[in-house]
Formats: sequence, C-alpha cells, structure tokens
Amino acid sequence: MTEKIPVGILGATGMVGQKYISLLENHPWFSVNYVAASPESAGKKYSDAVSGRWHMQKDIPNGVEKLVVGNANDFNSAIDKCAFVFSALELKDKKQLMTLEEEYARAGFPVVSNASAHRWTEDVPMIIPEINPEHTDIIRDQQKNHGFNKGFIVVKPNCSIQSYLTPVYALINQGYDVSRLFITTMQAASGAGHPGVSSLDLIDNVIPYIGGEEEKTEKEPLKILGQIENGRFVNYNKLEISAHCNRVPVYDGHTACVSLELRSKIGITPPYTSQIIEKPYIDLDYFIKIWNNFRSVPQELELPSAPKRPIIYKTENDRPQPRKDRDLENGMAVCVGRLRRDPVFDIKFVGLSHNTVRGAAGGGILNAELLKAKGYI
Amino acid sequence: MTEKIPVGILGATGMVGQKYISLLENHPWFSVNYVAASPESAGKKYSDAVSGRWHMQKDIPNGVEKLVVGNANDFNSAIDKCAFVFSALELKDKKQLMTLEEEYARAGFPVVSNASAHRWTEDVPMIIPEINPEHTDIIRDQQKNHGFNKGFIVVKPNCSIQSYLTPVYALINQGYDVSRLFITTMQAASGAGHPGVSSLDLIDNVIPYIGGEEEKTEKEPLKILGQIENGRFVNYNKLEISAHCNRVPVYDGHTACVSLELRSKIGITPPYTSQIIEKPYIDLDYFIKIWNNFRSVPQELELPSAPKRPIIYKTENDRPQPRKDRDLENGMAVCVGRLRRDPVFDIKFVGLSHNTVRGAAGGGILNAELLKAKGYI
Amino acid sequence: MTEKIPVGILGATGMVGQKYISLLENHPWFSVNYVAASPESAGKKYSDAVSGRWHMQKDIPNGVEKLVVGNANDFNSAIDKCAFVFSALELKDKKQLMTLEEEYARAGFPVVSNASAHRWTEDVPMIIPEINPEHTDIIRDQQKNHGFNKGFIVVKPNCSIQSYLTPVYALINQGYDVSRLFITTMQAASGAGHPGVSSLDLIDNVIPYIGGEEEKTEKEPLKILGQIENGRFVNYNKLEISAHCNRVPVYDGHTACVSLELRSKIGITPPYTSQIIEKPYIDLDYFIKIWNNFRSVPQELELPSAPKRPIIYKTENDRPQPRKDRDLENGMAVCVGRLRRDPVFDIKFVGLSHNTVRGAAGGGILNAELLKAKGYI
Amino acid sequence: MTEKIPVGILGATGMVGQKYISLLENHPWFSVNYVAASPESAGKKYSDAVSGRWHMQKDIPNGVEKLVVGNANDFNSAIDKCAFVFSALELKDKKQLMTLEEEYARAGFPVVSNASAHRWTEDVPMIIPEINPEHTDIIRDQQKNHGFNKGFIVVKPNCSIQSYLTPVYALINQGYDVSRLFITTMQAASGAGHPGVSSLDLIDNVIPYIGGEEEKTEKEPLKILGQIENGRFVNYNKLEISAHCNRVPVYDGHTACVSLELRSKIGITPPYTSQIIEKPYIDLDYFIKIWNNFRSVPQELELPSAPKRPIIYKTENDRPQPRKDRDLENGMAVCVGRLRRDPVFDIKFVGLSHNTVRGAAGGGILNAELLKAKGYI
Repeated sequence: MTEKIPVGILGATGMVGQKYISLLENHPWFSVNYVAASPESAGKKYSDAVSGRWHMQKDIPNGVEKLVVGNANDFNSAIDKCAFVFSALELKDKKQLMTLEEEYARAGFPVVSNASAHRWTEDVPMIIPEINPEHTDIIRDQQKNHGFNKGFIVVKPNCSIQSYLTPVYALINQGYDVSRLFITTMQAASGAGHPGVSSLDLIDNVIPYIGGEEEKTEKEPLKILGQIENGRFVNYNKLEISAHCNRVPVYDGHTACVSLELRSKIGITPPYTSQIIEKPYIDLDYFIKIWNNFRSVPQELELPSAPKRPIIYKTENDRPQPRKDRDLENGMAVCVGRLRRDPVFDIKFVGLSHNTVRGAAGGGILNAELLKAKGYI
Repeated sequence: MTEKIPVGILGATGMVGQKYISLLENHPWFSVNYVAASPESAGKKYSDAVSGRWHMQKDIPNGVEKLVVGNANDFNSAIDKCAFVFSALELKDKKQLMTLEEEYARAGFPVVSNASAHRWTEDVPMIIPEINPEHTDIIRDQQKNHGFNKGFIVVKPNCSIQSYLTPVYALINQGYDVSRLFITTMQAASGAGHPGVSSLDLIDNVIPYIGGEEEKTEKEPLKILGQIENGRFVNYNKLEISAHCNRVPVYDGHTACVSLELRSKIGITPPYTSQIIEKPYIDLDYFIKIWNNFRSVPQELELPSAPKRPIIYKTENDRPQPRKDRDLENGMAVCVGRLRRDPVFDIKFVGLSHNTVRGAAGGGILNAELLKAKGYI
Repeated sequence: MTEKIPVGILGATGMVGQKYISLLENHPWFSVNYVAASPESAGKKYSDAVSGRWHMQKDIPNGVEKLVVGNANDFNSAIDKCAFVFSALELKDKKQLMTLEEEYARAGFPVVSNASAHRWTEDVPMIIPEINPEHTDIIRDQQKNHGFNKGFIVVKPNCSIQSYLTPVYALINQGYDVSRLFITTMQAASGAGHPGVSSLDLIDNVIPYIGGEEEKTEKEPLKILGQIENGRFVNYNKLEISAHCNRVPVYDGHTACVSLELRSKIGITPPYTSQIIEKPYIDLDYFIKIWNNFRSVPQELELPSAPKRPIIYKTENDRPQPRKDRDLENGMAVCVGRLRRDPVFDIKFVGLSHNTVRGAAGGGILNAELLKAKGYI
Repeated sequence: MTEKIPVGILGATGMVGQKYISLLENHPWFSVNYVAASPESAGKKYSDAVSGRWHMQKDIPNGVEKLVVGNANDFNSAIDKCAFVFSALELKDKKQLMTLEEEYARAGFPVVSNASAHRWTEDVPMIIPEINPEHTDIIRDQQKNHGFNKGFIVVKPNCSIQSYLTPVYALINQGYDVSRLFITTMQAASGAGHPGVSSLDLIDNVIPYIGGEEEKTEKEPLKILGQIENGRFVNYNKLEISAHCNRVPVYDGHTACVSLELRSKIGITPPYTSQIIEKPYIDLDYFIKIWNNFRSVPQELELPSAPKRPIIYKTENDRPQPRKDRDLENGMAVCVGRLRRDPVFDIKFVGLSHNTVRGAAGGGILNAELLKAKGYI
C-alpha cells in the first residue's frame, strides 16, 4: 500500500468532522484530501472555516489546514478529489440528508456515514465491525436496488450503542441466549456536539432526557444483530431492550448500567465443559474471561484502528469511569466492570466507551478499514 | 403547644447534624437545646467545634451557636437537656453505634435516627411517614422486648429510597400489584458527607459505585412495605428490586431512573371504573393523577414539615432535574417525571428527591413530628 | 400604598426578564401587569412563550402565567398597561436598542434598564443605589434634553461591578483616596444567559475571556463615581482600573480578586482618632468595620429590596465563595473576605455578588424602588 | 548510554510519586528501580500498595508493578538500588522532611525534590531549567557545607510558578526591566493531591484561598531569578509580586492572569533596532515573538523531556484554556495568550501550565536530566 487512498469528509467543520480529521492524521491507509461543509463555509480555507471553533486538542493537521472547503450539497465538487467519503453531515431535514448521501453513492462514492438518516434503510448495513462485519454482504444488493455503480452507503449506529452491545454480543456469540436488557446510560456532553448543551443545564445537574436516544438504544441493536434475508435486513427478534438515557456533566465517554436476562438458564453448556448442566448457569468469572478474550474480524484482519482488545474488563469495584477509561486503546475499546448477579434478571454490569471516538469518527474509520480490507473500497 | 419541646442532636458537628440544626431553626414544635459529638469536640462551644466546617448556607442559628457540645458517647450528658434526640451519629463501628443508640433509649430518650445501624433490628421501625406511619405501632413491643421505659428507637431509610419508593407506593396503595423494579440512581456528592468524595473523582466523571448502596436500595423497601407480625417486622415479599447506584457531579438531589412491572396486568380494576377489564391495563394519565393527588397521614395530621404535595409530577419531557427540582416543597417533595411505557416491563419514570432534606434530616424531623402527633414523644 | 404600581417587563422571555418576573412575585409596591418580547413571542400566553425554557427555580407566578405577550418593539402595546417598564431587552443592534428605549421614554414610560446601550449616554444615570443615588438628579435634564414628558431612562451597570465597587466606594466614602485597582473576576455562567456558554467549554475548564467585559469593568465605575456638571456626567478621574475577566464553571455569583492602592498614604486621619498621622496608615480591622457598618440611602429609605447590610465581611480565610455566599440578603448583599496587606499596592481582598440578582434584575428593582421613593415614578 | 540509570522514587504511592512513575515509563535515560513510601506501605508489592488509589490514566508500568515498596524513612533501603532519588515525600513535619532528604544526600544520593522543605535552604538550588540552569553551580558549595560526598539536594519551585515566570523571564532575558507583577491564579484540583479538595467544595463553586500559595507565588521567583554570592543565594531584588490564588473546578492545569509593569519605560532599546527610543516602548507583537522564539539550555542540550517550544503563544482571544492547552508539548510547555496593554501597568496576559507535569513530576525529571547532562548524576 504505497500510496494512501484520498478521502473526503462531508460535514468537515462540525465536531464529528473535526474528529475525523484529527484521527485521520497519519493514518496508514487514508489521507484527507477533500473537505466539504455547508454553502456558507464553501470556498473558505479550512482553517478559516473553523476559526474560533476548532475543538480538537491537537492542532489542525498541516495537510488539511489549507484545503479549500467544498460545498457538501454538491457531490460534483468531490469528484476526482477522493475515493470515498465519510459523512458527518448534520442536516436537520432527514429526507434531504438521505437524498444527499444517495447522490454521493450514485456518483460512485462509497459513503461511510455517521448520520442517522439511513440507519433504517432496509438495504443499508449498520455496522460495528466486531459484531456484524458480514453485513457488508448486502452492499451488492444495495447497489443493484438503487442502480449504484461503485458507490454505496454504510452507516454506523448511535454513539452509545457500543458501550453495552459489544459485551452483550460477546456473550451471545458464546451461546448465551440473552433475552432482555435494562440499560440506563449516563452520556457525555460531547454527544450533543458544540455548542450542544448549555453549561447552565449541566452545572450541578443531570438531565434525564436526550431526544430520540432511548428509541435508538432500544431498536438499533436489533438490526445490528439481525440477518440478511432476500436482500434486506431482518431484525433479531430474540432480544427486548428498555433504555433510560441521561445527560451528565462529563466531557467525553458514555457510561451504561446494564441488567441482563438469559432466556434458557437451564441446560446451557458452558463452553469449557462438555457436560450439559441442569441448573441455572451463571459463572461471572467465565463471563469476564469471555470479554477479555473477545477478538473478532477487525483484530484478525489487523485493521489499523482496531483495538487489540475490543473489550477490557476492569476488576476494581468502581470502574469503568469515563475520565479514567474512555481513552483505553486510543478510545476504541469498550471498558466493562462491576459484573455481579442481578437479583431480578441474571447479571448486571457497567459498560463504557468513548462516544466521539469509538462511538463516532473512530467507529466510522474502522468501518472504512473493514470495507477496504474486504475490497469494497 | 405554648412551649417548644427541647431536642438534642447526636453527631451535631457532621453534615447531617448541621442540616438538622439548620432545618430546626424556627421549628414550631421543637427547639435544639442540646448538641453532642465525639469526645474531641466535647466541651467546646458549638460554633468553635464546627469552625471552618459549617457547610450550611444559612449561618449557625443564634440559639445553637453558644451551646456547649456534649460527649455523644455518654448519654448522661443529655439528661435534663432534651426530651428526645435525633441521632446523626457516624461511628464506623456499627455494633458500637447500635449499643449507643440503645443506651439513649434505655435512659428514656426517644431516638429518631438517621444511622443505618438499627435499620434491620427486627422491632425497630424504619419509617417514611407517607408510606408506613402505622409501623410506629411496634414501639410498644420494642420497649417491652428491650426493657425500655419511655425511650425507643425509630429509624429512617437510606437517603435515596424516597426518590422512587414514594411514587411506587402510591401505585401499590391504589391496588396496582407491582412485582419488579429496575432502579438506576444518579446520586449527589452530599450523600457522602464532607469531605466525602474527592473533587478529582467528580470533575468530568461519574463513579458507577457507592459502597453498600445497591444492597440498601434493593432491601430496605421490603421492610418499609412490610407488616408487623408477632411483634416483629415481616418483609413485603411481592416485590423484587435490582439497583445500579452511581455518584454524579451534583451537589444535592438523588435522581432515580425506574422501570416497573405489574404482576397482574389482567383483571385490574382501575379505581375510577367498576368494570373488571380483561386486558393489560396501563393508563399513564391515571398514574399521574394518582401521584399528584397522593396525600397521606403527614398531610392529614398537618405535620409542620409535611409537604403539601408529597409527589409532584412535572410534565416537561426533561424533568425532574436535581438543580431545578430538589427544593420543591422546601426539599420535602418527591418530583416525578417522564412517565412512559416500558418496552420490557410496563412503565418507566424518573424520580428525584433532596437527599439531605427529605432523605436525611428533613425525613428525620418528619418522623419526630409523626411520633409527637401520635403521642410517642 | 394600597394599590400596587403596574409594571411592564420588556424582554420578558429571556433569563433576565424571567428573573424580574420571579423576583417581583409578591413585591409590596410593584405588580407585573405587562410582558413584552420579540415579535415571534408576541400574542402567545406567557407560559407558552417560555415553555421549555423557563429557567427559574420557582414556578411562573400565577398572575404572569396567563398574560399575553406584547410586541416589545411597539411601545404602543404597553400603554395603559403599566406605569413604567423594566428593560431586559437583548437586541444585538445597540443603536436599535437605544432608539427603542427612547421611544418608551418618549411615550411617557420611565425605563429602568439592564441593557448596556444607554450606559454611556451623557445624561442617562448609571445607578447603584448605595453609591450614587443622587445621580437621579440628572433625570430632569435628560427629560428636557430629549423632550421627554414623564418618561426617562435609568440604567444599571454591568453585572460584575457591584462585587468590588461597593466595598471600594465604602472606603472612598470614608476619605480613603483610592488611586488604582487590579481586578480579576471569575464570573458565573449565568452571566452569559441561556444557552450562553456551551457545557463543553466549562467542563474541566476556565475561559480567560469574556467579550467586552474588561472594558466595562475598567470604565463603568468612573461614571458611577462621577459627578453631574452642566447637565451631563463627568467621570471620576482619580481612579485607574485594570481588569482580567474569566468565565468559570459556577452557576451564579461573580467573584472578584481586588488589589487596591491608596494615593495619599501619608496624613490620613483615621476617622476614629483626631490625630493626624505621618506614616502610611492601613488598618485592616478598621476597613472591615467600615464595610460591616456601611449603610446608604436604600437602607435609610428602607426600600423593600434593599439589603439590611449591603456589605458583609466573612472572617473565614476561604470566603467568600459563590455557592455559599451569593444568596446573602436574598442575593442583594456584596460579600467580602480575605482582606490582607498587598505587597505591591496597599490591600487586597475578594468580593462577591449575585450576578443575576444584585447584578441584574434585583439591582434594577432596587433602582426602581429608589426612583419611586424619590417621586420619579 | 547503553544502560539506563536506576532511579528511586520516595513517596511513590502519592499522586506526585505516581506521576513520576507514569512519566518515567520508557524514559531513555532513567529506569525506576526502587520505590519507597511510608512504613505502612513498606514490604508490599507496589501494585498492592496503590490498589484502589492509582490515579494515573495509564496502567502501572510493568517494571514497577512488582517492585517491593521500601521504607522511605530509612535511606539504607535505597542503597545499591538506585543512583539517585526523586523525592515526592509528603511528610507534614517540614523539619523531619528536611532531615530525611539530607540523610539521603549524605548517604550519597542526589535528591531531586518536589517537596517544599528545602526551597529556602540557602545552598539548595530551586531550578526551572529554562530559567536558572546555572544555579546547579552551588551544588559543590552545598556538598562542602554539609559534608556530602556524592549526594546533594536540588529542588523545584511550587507547581504554579512556571505558568507566569517563564514568560516573564523571557522578557527579562531580552533586557526588559520588569518591576512589578499582579498575578491571579486559578488552580486545578490536582494541585491539592488526592483526596485533596472535597467535591462538595468545587461543585458550582470557586475557593479564593489556597494555604501558603500566595506567599510561595510572591517569593519563590526571587530566588529563582537570584544569584549565587559566596556560596549562597541572594534574591533578585528588582521585582515585586502580588498574588491572589484561587482553586477552581478544573482537573489539571493552573491558569494565571498577569499584569506586568516595566520599570524603565524610557530608553529601552528594542533588540531589533539599534536606536535608543525616548518614549515608553511596548511592542506587543515583539513580545509575542520573544515568547515563541524563546529557547534555553534544556532545548540546546536536547534533554529528553524538554519541550521543543517552552513557551507557546496562542493567538485566539480566549486562550489559553486548561482543558485545551495543558497538554501542549506533553504537558511541558507554558501556553500564553491574551497579551494586551494594561491600563494601570504596561501589559497583561494569561499564562497556563500543567501543574502535575511541568509543575511537578515533569519538572523534576527535567531537573534530573539537566543534572545528568551537566555531570552531577
């Protein structure tokens, strides 16, 4: 891979767009060659377009600083500038956003999107590479359905999903039949972008509501765990989820308190014995082993942004904590802790992941790396 | 009631003791006449004993400032100084604390305690006056069992219980057979006293663990909802609770996210019809009415500290919030909001109460008022 | 005063407007009878106009909830509805704001303004009632100059000025010739209104900049301490001020660190001796006495919102603190502490006042009370 | 340098000790080979000794985890284990701490100390390597005075000094005769260690007091800028400093607002002209150039921990900010911003540095690197 693949960032001036640009600095495969934003920013030098609202800790990468911002609403501006695009578009009109991403796909661009618009389009895969990498298989159907040639659309789920779904999936993957989940999230302010939540609402306070978040938390996992049938996704129908979503005075890092019920507590064969057991089988130590040993396709493919350990279990009784654990594996790991018996369901635990890295730009980059490794890009 | 009843505060220099002193200023029935603390503080003027660590917003009340601090370990110091005592003792040795409170009771003092030591003593009532005021009936048994003459011990539950148990009880009280609860609390720093939690642990952070708190949250409601049988308490056995308890960067006010399951969804007679219905019966508007109309013994007796409306439902979709709602009814109300259908159980909602008022000193004072009104004090 | 004076609030839906409405509930002299806001809110019921953005701790007062919001841009809507108006208008166009306030004045309304537009108009008094109550004398000139009949405009200074100017004035008032001040403020988020500062900018952070604030801090005191000459204000020219203004993660309460130089350190006669002393005379205890004993016109007139003690000195070495001291005297007092020798100038101290009460709506109400007591309203 | 120099950490279990261990992981010259703490920790494996109170973001380095903790009070335990020691001792008894550090020195260990005990010992250098690297010259005198053989003591100043003294020194170094400084600091919670400041004191609050901090801020620069005369330090006597020190709700990073007066405003020769000018000469752009171009001995010697740019000027009008700028150059740079004219003195600006890196462990390591490069270690 001697030459890097040129990529474009749509919505490059927003928080997620900035995070993409920051994380892609020195990326071994991809190089940001095109940035696009709203018509008001178009035509400006990137550093001017974000002047006074560059929110990343590192400075604007040299190569990006001087790029002239394109008009994101016009896919033609991207042609010849990049091989694919990351979409961090923030249009309020969902319909318009869907159409715009489709136009890029039709113009031949693979679109790796953070936006929620296409998450429920029946032939668009919603991917967490450690969980459902095979969902990329639908891309060929999608291209056929929409008459796309080389282009296509792939999305990632909502920014808090990975905090709990990855550890839950690791158990499902080992044969545990998870039936029901109660999830209460405590989500960071950065999830709302900048300016997002007013400081007056988060000083000495918690807001027990984030618009649309509980619905996403309850439904998106079902598509991610679902299957492709006849060129469309069919939801996983064995899991019920109830979510409470809260905003807390934390900068980065979404925390999730999870209570989990197993359907068939009788007759589970723990993988490390050959014996069929007759009684409820909950082995906390074994679950921790499953999590710490969990590896998946991104690890096997050695994708550049893949965390070596996608799930890290902390044994201290007061972890994970957002400030202390959000940056594990460069923000790409899910940190889990406090596994214990649940007096109503079966187990409870706490999960945490970095919402703007693993839950946003980092997750999008990992999706693109998966697509590249599989030959779609 | 021309003359006020003289009361003593044990543990008067700690945060809860200070809150008692602050809330009792200008109380119509009670007057702080005695303060006691550890031997190190004994003999000092109260204002000297708390110098540099008086944490209340109002100044030390005039009448208390000059009281000489007694030795809380010696009940004799309290004799002739007060008719009963509030115990805000913070001894680490639970056994020693139990013995000390018993000594006060044996010496003839009603002990209205915030401490957790006696919460599970089988003949000590754990009271939330709106829920189980009739549990005071056990006092006569307790006195007989321990050979107390006039004295006795009454406790209040943990500081976060009221945030969710009062609204849950209001439903039970209307005939709804609540079977299971999932509760995730986001608790204020003041719950840990001063200095309590280090600022380094709560800047840009959440701690998903509070020692012993989940156990209390899961078990204490069962005694409160329980019954007296043969001179001892028998726990309520129809309710299962699972709790996640978190510490958040909030000064005062514990928030609880609650998911609630009803056992018999079939055949509930909604109180406002006479018809037996055959199908699951969940009427959110009716539940809100139950909450807003909930009144109980403290309201009927017009106890001085009783909130006029013990439960206040906020209709805005982002309430209750600790900074905005903890002070409702002088911090004695429980604020509820976000009632909605739960996709796994039946309903979910958010409850909030002021942990150092309703959940600590204010709750203790209301207990004492109840005892006074019932003739125990 | 059997009947209350009807007042109007311009800019009634913003943070300052809401504070006016909240503070005026149960005011003994004034009653909110008219509310006005931008054309978008006009015509709505007040409670609808602020739905989802009512930021006060208390509910909307009953009498105001149902008022129909008028169009603040049209002074005619106010006619017959109120005897005078509080202006909490937030127009960005300063010129337009000046004109609008003048239109109200011309229409016969006394305008008691929080806005900065007219602060430097040469015949508009900028009043802190404890410091320059006699500046109301210019009103007659102003009316003549502008052809106002009954109406006029009075303004209050920037929200942080009282934190330090009141204690500095108390010294000047006792004959101390203050020559130079260094002031560093740490200002609360509420000073920027809602949404104001993004939570992302104040979690684990301080912003060492507030647009225009240092200029106001350095210049407004000079007009307040100035004199009327020939119908216009002439600035006080004996004081130089340098300011650093910072935004800190505090909800309410502006703190100011002040270093103060006296010009003539030789020959000051301390008021409690009759002896002329020859050496630098700095007596910290005496300064504290000056502050604690400071009373002025609002106290003499017993204005309803006047703090009994306008300056309260706290002797603890770590006070004043915003959370603990901002509510002294219902938020109308200035709290001072940490008076000590300054190794470069003469003394240093810390001042604090509640920026949305004393520094905004409360200060405006006190101005109106002064005007009423003096017969201007 | 094929083999790394073995170093010991005294006070290895505290916050500063942990920071040393964390920063020294993978250090090119030094390798932590010995850790010592109070007798209670002695004998434990390091990971056990800090169990539940390891506060660094990275895990305990592998090589350190298993070290057995020595008794810091007994210098004999260090013999043969390390070539020199970093002292992060936190003994409250200053005398005892002085004696203990001397014992280590007498036993042959160079002691690179963070503690304040020896800062005013007349033959102990207090070093910021960019400012007074030549102060190491006193080491030979010190050894002679105390009869030390190979050992000696070197200290670093208080954790907030570098935020403002480095930029001030850069001006002095260019010939500007700085006469007076007003400094107001806003200091991070980590400066008080863990648990340090209670969360209750920093939620929605600022504390305008840090014990002893203002005295250190006003005096330590005078020794650092001083000279060696006859084997002892003589303070710089041309600078007067007044300081206000505040604690703010920030995790890491001390911010300082600085007003600076130049003595001889007439006749300064700006270094880039040869002309003697007659009028006050303040050239903001030139000062910024001085700061951005400032390099000193650590940069010339290419010390491993030396920031490439010791002072970084940010042009945005709201910088520096602790969360955004404390990590510049791995936390070793001082970030400066907001340079502007001061209406009372000459210029004002804001400085910021990372208090636990540059201001504590990182500064100590840089001192050790300087000593190594100069042949003292």
